[in-house]
Amino acid sequence: MTAPHTLNSHPTTIAFTKGHGTQNDFIILPDPEAQLSLTPQLIATLCDRQRGIGADGILRVATTGALRRAGLLTNNPTSLEAISDDDWFMDYYNADGSVAEMCGNGTRVFAHYVRSRGLVTTDQFTIGTRAGAKPVTVHSFDDDNAVVSVAMGPATSLGESTCSMGGRMYAGMGVDMGNPHLACVVPGLTAEALADLTLDRPEFDAEFFPEGVNVEVLTELAHSPEGYRTHMRVYERGVGETRSCGTGTVAAARAALAYAGFVNGTVMVQIPGGQVEVTIDGDTSTLRGPSALVATGELHCAALN
Amino acid sequence: MTAPHTLNSHPTTIAFTKGHGTQNDFIILPDPEAQLSLTPQLIATLCDRQRGIGADGILRVATTGALRRAGLLTNNPTSLEAISDDDWFMDYYNADGSVAEMCGNGTRVFAHYVRSRGLVTTDQFTIGTRAGAKPVTVHSFDDDNAVVSVAMGPATSLGESTCSMGGRMYAGMGVDMGNPHLACVVPGLTAEALADLTLDRPEFDAEFFPEGVNVEVLTELAHSPEGYRTHMRVYERGVGETRSCGTGTVAAARAALAYAGFVNGTVMVQIPGGQVEVTIDGDTSTLRGPSALVATGELHCAALN
Repeated sequence: MTAPHTLNSHPTTIAFTKGHGTQNDFIILPDPEAQLSLTPQLIATLCDRQRGIGADGILRVATTGALRRAGLLTNNPTSLEAISDDDWFMDYYNADGSVAEMCGNGTRVFAHYVRSRGLVTTDQFTIGTRAGAKPVTVHSFDDDNAVVSVAMGPATSLGESTCSMGGRMYAGMGVDMGNPHLACVVPGLTAEALADLTLDRPEFDAEFFPEGVNVEVLTELAHSPEGYRTHMRVYERGVGETRSCGTGTVAAARAALAYAGFVNGTVMVQIPGGQVEVTIDGDTSTLRGPSALVATGELHCAALN
Repeated sequence: MTAPHTLNSHPTTIAFTKGHGTQNDFIILPDPEAQLSLTPQLIATLCDRQRGIGADGILRVATTGALRRAGLLTNNPTSLEAISDDDWFMDYYNADGSVAEMCGNGTRVFAHYVRSRGLVTTDQFTIGTRAGAKPVTVHSFDDDNAVVSVAMGPATSLGESTCSMGGRMYAGMGVDMGNPHLACVVPGLTAEALADLTLDRPEFDAEFFPEGVNVEVLTELAHSPEGYRTHMRVYERGVGETRSCGTGTVAAARAALAYAGFVNGTVMVQIPGGQVEVTIDGDTSTLRGPSALVATGELHCAALN
């Protein structure tokens, strides 16, 4: 008997779309019945920027039911219970082939894809992820561009901690977004001075952050015609500096608001890859930002080696 | 009156293929009539690995006649005289949007594309480049993979020079391939020790190399079942270390042969991106290696920003 997900394990071509959310980029693989055999080797080759298409990660677009039937959703049974078999599931893999639970920027791109390709026909819907059901709102879209909000869950303060990075000490707020962050407001820092800082592997309090930490460096909240604004750079755990980190922008907004004496509020977060809007409201947070789908086509499997 | 090359300057989609030769990667734009307006900004966006598809460069596939009529081949009139209007021309741009004259790995990928897509129907033909007409031979091909030889012209010895790189001194042969190389055979170096070397910006003799220099570090020639072999790494002028450099492999073969007391010969050159075969025969050199066309599709212009 052949398992459902191996039926189409040796196709000659694979349909793909490439997109990014604030320059965090993804290869989207439409695979409603979860028939593709996404081996770590294939994922790594697809994400290799010279040998493949190149991306930070892979988003397989499958129904939750198909992934369940294929035996691909065996972990975290509790958090997945609320996801219906008919919901589209963001089956997300890092560039090295490892499974990832959640990605805020990826969720915007995934929502843009399923809405613009007609797989869903309403602007508010739920996306399944390994971190649970994520409500999204598609504010505007066409085939190429969209603006999407994603409910990111609570941004929980862990208290104060410090780190050293690039020869400089930083103090900030530890924030649990499902993954650990240290968001450091630097008093008096300008956007220009932020751009000139050296971000490299941080030394941090390993008792405070036993799983490692993503470090955000940011300017104090400033007023702008669009509301409160901060400029941020991020050094991602195990990756290095990136142009964007969805959970990092939420952690940064939480810390920037706290530094200014607020608990709740909306903050425009300017990152190297663009701009997003973060709203903190009690135990919920929302990340609103752009998605772009830049190319669509077919991968030639025999050329991927 | 509208110039021919602006007729289609604002399309909504652009057809593309992505390919690589020993992991030197390219976006191929089929544009027989040279109608696309390839601005430096568009090229830089397409080659941006997060915002676009990502590549080391762009290969526009146009006829020589169409590029001439569009006024895009006004430089180097002498070297271009031998190219017929009907020949396919590799209109090559670096990732920053600047024009490049020639690229050995790109020429293999270009030849693979025009042969496999039926734009030429023989295995031996001439490709126009800004460095002149380049004869190629397609030894084998299908839609996905090919093996191609490119005539690379003379590999001219410039005599001995030295450089310092990563805290180490190197002595080697200066080689003019149209671009300048310093190919350094390191006596006793193993492939494993080569892989562990630090390659960074070299300090070189600026009187010897007034235009800068590409530096190759390589092992002495060794016998293998396939013939002579060397392992090489390359630090490209203005770029950094790359996985492959076509002219660099030819310069390396020239230097490795000379170090072993030969003028002519065939050398398998193992580079981080794969393996190529270089033949030096008097005033001619030939680079033979693989090409892979990994994806084909459409770029969405409105999403490229």
